[in-house]
Amino acid sequence: MAFNKVSLVSPEVAQRAVTTRRDLHRHPELGFTEFRTASIVAERLTKLGLDVRLGREVMDSASRFGVPSEQVLDHAYARAEAEGAPAQFLQQLAGGHTAVVATLKGAKPGPVVALRVDIDALPIMENDTQAHLPAREGFVSAHPGIMHACGHDGHTAIGLGVAEVLSGLTARLHGTVKFIFQPAEEGGRGAFSMVKAGVVDDVDHFMAIHLGMGVPSRTFYPSARGHLAGVRLDVTFRGQAAHAGARPEEGRNALVAASTAVLNLYAISRHHAGRSRVNVGTLRSGSGRNVIPDEAVMQMEVRGATEEITEYMHARAEAVLRGAAAAQDVEVEIKIAGRSTTAVSDQAFAERVASTLAGLDGVAVDATSHLASGSEDATFFMRRVQERGGQALYAVVGSDISSGHHTPTFDIDEADMVWAIEALATGIVGLGEGA
Amino acid sequence: MAFNKVSLVSPEVAQRAVTTRRDLHRHPELGFTEFRTASIVAERLTKLGLDVRLGREVMDSASRFGVPSEQVLDHAYARAEAEGAPAQFLQQLAGGHTAVVATLKGAKPGPVVALRVDIDALPIMENDTQAHLPAREGFVSAHPGIMHACGHDGHTAIGLGVAEVLSGLTARLHGTVKFIFQPAEEGGRGAFSMVKAGVVDDVDHFMAIHLGMGVPSRTFYPSARGHLAGVRLDVTFRGQAAHAGARPEEGRNALVAASTAVLNLYAISRHHAGRSRVNVGTLRSGSGRNVIPDEAVMQMEVRGATEEITEYMHARAEAVLRGAAAAQDVEVEIKIAGRSTTAVSDQAFAERVASTLAGLDGVAVDATSHLASGSEDATFFMRRVQERGGQALYAVVGSDISSGHHTPTFDIDEADMVWAIEALATGIVGLGEGA
Amino acid sequence: MAFNKVSLVSPEVAQRAVTTRRDLHRHPELGFTEFRTASIVAERLTKLGLDVRLGREVMDSASRFGVPSEQVLDHAYARAEAEGAPAQFLQQLAGGHTAVVATLKGAKPGPVVALRVDIDALPIMENDTQAHLPAREGFVSAHPGIMHACGHDGHTAIGLGVAEVLSGLTARLHGTVKFIFQPAEEGGRGAFSMVKAGVVDDVDHFMAIHLGMGVPSRTFYPSARGHLAGVRLDVTFRGQAAHAGARPEEGRNALVAASTAVLNLYAISRHHAGRSRVNVGTLRSGSGRNVIPDEAVMQMEVRGATEEITEYMHARAEAVLRGAAAAQDVEVEIKIAGRSTTAVSDQAFAERVASTLAGLDGVAVDATSHLASGSEDATFFMRRVQERGGQALYAVVGSDISSGHHTPTFDIDEADMVWAIEALATGIVGLGEGA
Amino acid sequence: MAFNKVSLVSPEVAQRAVTTRRDLHRHPELGFTEFRTASIVAERLTKLGLDVRLGREVMDSASRFGVPSEQVLDHAYARAEAEGAPAQFLQQLAGGHTAVVATLKGAKPGPVVALRVDIDALPIMENDTQAHLPAREGFVSAHPGIMHACGHDGHTAIGLGVAEVLSGLTARLHGTVKFIFQPAEEGGRGAFSMVKAGVVDDVDHFMAIHLGMGVPSRTFYPSARGHLAGVRLDVTFRGQAAHAGARPEEGRNALVAASTAVLNLYAISRHHAGRSRVNVGTLRSGSGRNVIPDEAVMQMEVRGATEEITEYMHARAEAVLRGAAAAQDVEVEIKIAGRSTTAVSDQAFAERVASTLAGLDGVAVDATSHLASGSEDATFFMRRVQERGGQALYAVVGSDISSGHHTPTFDIDEADMVWAIEALATGIVGLGEGA
Repeated sequence: MAFNKVSLVSPEVAQRAVTTRRDLHRHPELGFTEFRTASIVAERLTKLGLDVRLGREVMDSASRFGVPSEQVLDHAYARAEAEGAPAQFLQQLAGGHTAVVATLKGAKPGPVVALRVDIDALPIMENDTQAHLPAREGFVSAHPGIMHACGHDGHTAIGLGVAEVLSGLTARLHGTVKFIFQPAEEGGRGAFSMVKAGVVDDVDHFMAIHLGMGVPSRTFYPSARGHLAGVRLDVTFRGQAAHAGARPEEGRNALVAASTAVLNLYAISRHHAGRSRVNVGTLRSGSGRNVIPDEAVMQMEVRGATEEITEYMHARAEAVLRGAAAAQDVEVEIKIAGRSTTAVSDQAFAERVASTLAGLDGVAVDATSHLASGSEDATFFMRRVQERGGQALYAVVGSDISSGHHTPTFDIDEADMVWAIEALATGIVGLGEGA
Repeated sequence: MAFNKVSLVSPEVAQRAVTTRRDLHRHPELGFTEFRTASIVAERLTKLGLDVRLGREVMDSASRFGVPSEQVLDHAYARAEAEGAPAQFLQQLAGGHTAVVATLKGAKPGPVVALRVDIDALPIMENDTQAHLPAREGFVSAHPGIMHACGHDGHTAIGLGVAEVLSGLTARLHGTVKFIFQPAEEGGRGAFSMVKAGVVDDVDHFMAIHLGMGVPSRTFYPSARGHLAGVRLDVTFRGQAAHAGARPEEGRNALVAASTAVLNLYAISRHHAGRSRVNVGTLRSGSGRNVIPDEAVMQMEVRGATEEITEYMHARAEAVLRGAAAAQDVEVEIKIAGRSTTAVSDQAFAERVASTLAGLDGVAVDATSHLASGSEDATFFMRRVQERGGQALYAVVGSDISSGHHTPTFDIDEADMVWAIEALATGIVGLGEGA
Repeated sequence: MAFNKVSLVSPEVAQRAVTTRRDLHRHPELGFTEFRTASIVAERLTKLGLDVRLGREVMDSASRFGVPSEQVLDHAYARAEAEGAPAQFLQQLAGGHTAVVATLKGAKPGPVVALRVDIDALPIMENDTQAHLPAREGFVSAHPGIMHACGHDGHTAIGLGVAEVLSGLTARLHGTVKFIFQPAEEGGRGAFSMVKAGVVDDVDHFMAIHLGMGVPSRTFYPSARGHLAGVRLDVTFRGQAAHAGARPEEGRNALVAASTAVLNLYAISRHHAGRSRVNVGTLRSGSGRNVIPDEAVMQMEVRGATEEITEYMHARAEAVLRGAAAAQDVEVEIKIAGRSTTAVSDQAFAERVASTLAGLDGVAVDATSHLASGSEDATFFMRRVQERGGQALYAVVGSDISSGHHTPTFDIDEADMVWAIEALATGIVGLGEGA
Repeated sequence: MAFNKVSLVSPEVAQRAVTTRRDLHRHPELGFTEFRTASIVAERLTKLGLDVRLGREVMDSASRFGVPSEQVLDHAYARAEAEGAPAQFLQQLAGGHTAVVATLKGAKPGPVVALRVDIDALPIMENDTQAHLPAREGFVSAHPGIMHACGHDGHTAIGLGVAEVLSGLTARLHGTVKFIFQPAEEGGRGAFSMVKAGVVDDVDHFMAIHLGMGVPSRTFYPSARGHLAGVRLDVTFRGQAAHAGARPEEGRNALVAASTAVLNLYAISRHHAGRSRVNVGTLRSGSGRNVIPDEAVMQMEVRGATEEITEYMHARAEAVLRGAAAAQDVEVEIKIAGRSTTAVSDQAFAERVASTLAGLDGVAVDATSHLASGSEDATFFMRRVQERGGQALYAVVGSDISSGHHTPTFDIDEADMVWAIEALATGIVGLGEGA
């Protein structure tokens, strides 16, 4: 199918994308607590006639990283209930199993094409001044300290929009389309568990998308590469408290261990073979001014341009953490809180998709390989598909964002959701038709 | 007056001391938020006929250290209201001016004798198992995370008990007795402001007391010395956040500055002239795992056996903090959050008090000089009185405590309050009589 | 001129290259002390009839970095005298002005072509076992702790060989050839001062060479790029000594400052835009076990893929050094001990040279752009020539080295010097002929 | 015997003390290399008729701490030979066994009294200006970088003087006098090995002396106490060198480990029970600016007011060193380089000695207990004698020193040696006589 001026996206679908995005923006949910989001997604997809699976069926529970405490899960679940999450789906998500996968079969034979979007929000307090459009228009976050500051509300709305468009085209659709709504992308916590559950084991063509990313509105880059691999660690040093004035020698100082670790971590020799990163993002230690700190908790991460570099950084970080603990005679516990890998879009695949979009009105399509910064756990899906012989791409849906990703005044241009739905639906149909 | 077997403490006064202590124990309040405690104290003393002054009249507002935020003060004030604090006194305490001073004039001429007790609690979560007597008997803290874990509830009850006893003896009482109920002793935050307000400028004999302190029940040590001087600092490093993966060079890392400071602070060369201490009790830094931390907040302290040693440690600590900040190109703000000084009980005074207690049944009195550990801002009162030519002592009221001071299972033996009231009332009467 | 089988390098010239290289290898001299080397070079070039300038005439004295102490210079000068350095040239090199520039004018008009070689050795103790060829053949270093472990002896011999060949071809030579013998390349200390003296201000085509570098024998890469820019710093912390047992508080600890600096230096946030490096290579501190160290001296460096990255690292390093000093209340002195910059071979120039070497028997020539590691201050010459509109290249003369550069068993394959002379002479003649 | 005006010290003995001291001052020798000093001492004592034992006979070779390398020992031995050390004694000192013990038996029965002096010098470059008396008078150190800057030259001369005086008084002498000339007091390296060899196992009364120590000339304090116990450690971190620009990840950075250790060592929580000290006196690391340091060598020490505190500091230091090494994945070797313990002079013994000195003309004797600072391994002798039921004292021979101990301009007032000989001879004779 060649793209033509008769749009696949009706005004109703376009309007619904905006409404959906705004509802999600107003009710943001952190990784593995997307109870309201995922149950709404499941309900919508079910109504559209797709075969919907969710929860433990599409996630390997033990392969999730950084799952929140039961208390946090319970609180978010109750909030979702209170905010009208459809009960029959909600129940299947209990315990932080907030993934949804839906399948749409075309009338004609063809490949399995997957579209993956992520659905989680960030722990950021959204700006609520009139200068910020979501506040001005009344859909600013209703959950203090949580915000869709990375566009995943838009991704979800796009995913639902494409599903709606394609569900009306099954008669001409070749093959199968799989819609993957992934929780907990932030921190690299959700994708691995879905890969482990086999979600993409039958996929021939895989696509992940992201809005913004420094690419302007009405621009489509279907071939991103270069995501850094990463390992996220939650580290707890446990020593012995003591009165700092009266019995200092009885203390074992967890904060001195942590401070030593911080300086040594940033000082890890960098690998000659490519980019590497290390960061200690947070540290919390101590209970009272005159008490030798008996605990220090840090959230940290290492990243690398390749798995080898990342593993080098990871191994060095573990040595530093254990050595710093030993130097202060304190215990250290190290938990993996997230992971991502590297991946490269298949160039031929990206170019093939680009070719189907030739007629997309007013949208610039550039299939050359673009370097991405940051990390992204869609890479686990990509790597799995590529290992099994399929093709994968990571596409950027350009959008003039109001301020940087992960900032309190982040906002997308909603109009970009509409042509993205058109582009993705067009591309998917085209793939089935052997375009 | 020689002490005799006819006790000054009636069974009703003894019972009231226990009831009062348990009520205060159940409603503990942190430094400068002792709204309920201080207003109850003021009401009781007023009813006993004393001349009561409170709030700004007996505190120099600007000389308080580590006053909580307005929000914290407001919350505590509202809680005190809700828990029945008498309104006419409560109002005078607004804004964290929670000191009370009451004067009792004897019928006969004589010196001014002051008894100082402290009234604040600690930020500790009290043990609520049946093994802990306050829990078993139903007066465990009703304020989660706040606890009378240093016996100040007992001190307050003793102070009120002595006032009640002496208010019935004015006919034979020589001179004037001043009851000082000081807020915010923990952290050395309240006494200095009361000294600045001139509260002890007319005092000839000053006494401060403390329960427990490793001294067994039914033992009275009127001559403690050797409290460490100390300076408490609240330190905030402010840098620049940046995405740790994408733009690490744009960050200015407050956590690296703080970690550097921690290691350098503990490494300050110790002074040969006597004991010194330094501790970083708490550190909070960072907002997200992949963000270079833009803020780090620490609570720290230095102590020394003399003012000179303490000032040496303080000056070195400031240099470390500023240097560590400069090394990371971040800002640092340093606020004094508390202070205490050193002081020594006047030996002659202690022995004179001891001599009046000769007949105190079943109580061991030892007026030799005892070394105290820890810090105590009653020392500011002592130093002021001594500078003006008066005498001062710091007395330990022994009590078999259930576990260490500042621990979740701390408890005193309430029986020790009763003889302490007797001893202090006896001593004060004796001082007036020129015993 | 097309290259042909009639070699430009006579057996005598080839033999003299080996003899020269072995003599230099046996008498290695560190940067700015190449008194014997430079005076021998000057004598040889003078005898060949070139116009030779040396010493302050071809170096801006104040623009040298890391000049040794007068004592070290004097000692090396005396050694050179004792080892037969020709006196009339030696005198012009006094004070560490050990550069030589010689000009050969062709009979025909044409461009100015420069060939730069470096002449200094390294502070390495050479292996003197029979397994090491220079020891076996009797030309192992006669200067203990100094060694030609980077092939500059070979470079110098090549430079002299090319001069000898071309001095016999002046009749057919177009333009002018400039031979630059640069001291103190190691550490990036010498080139900048020659650039400042205007040595390449009239050069149209500039060539620098290096033997080995991981490229096999009989292979010629005329287009290297990617040298890291760098700044080398000599840092001295000066505090106050004190008896560590008796008066620790009187000390100001230079070692604690240096240790703090070390950890903070390695912890500098890396720049996203490309490779960066930081290293503290040496640290010497303290005079006695029980004395608080009053001095700490470190040799360090920063490097970066671009000048911007290098300046970022340099600025951050200075802040760290000053902050660490301030934290310990010690002084710090920071001196620039060396510098290098980045440069890229002109591809067209490299290809043009390569084309003249088509007939070079048994030598593989590859003019594609190759990434170099490490730093090199020939880049200052390259940048200067390129800024003035000329062309520059950095060529690798492949050689099967016996072990890594800068190791005690490093050795080159001397046969590679011979074809290198042939190739360079051929290339230079070709350039003049407009090949 | 009551002291009387007829001095025991003849003008010849007095003159000889000065001559001896100046000869030793001119030829200072570091610990375990006192080959010339000890052989001269042995020769002198032999000539006086004492029973002289030396070398391995009076030292347990393996119990020495911090013995220099064979090369250093050989060099010093050769120097002693060249400087005329008497050969028959010198040979017995080989290998750094430089202790001498000589016994003088009195004609009458009585106790065993020991006098211990130390004989080693310090690694300090002596001032050689005319303002410094040893330079002005021509006996400044002839061994560059070595200096008697702690008065041990005087101690040795005093010991020899007392031996000469008493050797002329054997007829009236009760009991036995043991003269202990101990090497390697600096750093606490020699005494322990002599104790292990049983040198004081038969001693009833033990005396050690020290000149200066802040006590003025013509003043004698026979009762010092309070020396800090100490452990001296030589620490070597061994990692892996790597080119810091090309292959940083291959390095294992010994300097980062050492820097981490430095900061953590100084940061060890101090013991509440008394004074403690830690110092890293020297650090040497690295071989080249652009090489990741593969070795770091430090000399450090811990001290404490008691053995318990010292062991606490020692154990914490070892944990820090091992942890810091582990954090950087480098090896660490920790060797004990010296030790001292605490000891207290027996007050009764000191007073008894003082009483015999009542008539000592122009000398103030004060037998009250005086607090010493610093460490001293005579304490091992004292502790051993006291453990076996004997008595020990540590006496300060006051002397107006020209500048602080361990400084380049240190000098004693030689006149103090003369009365010290008189006082010690008098005291020893008195002890035998049951004074």
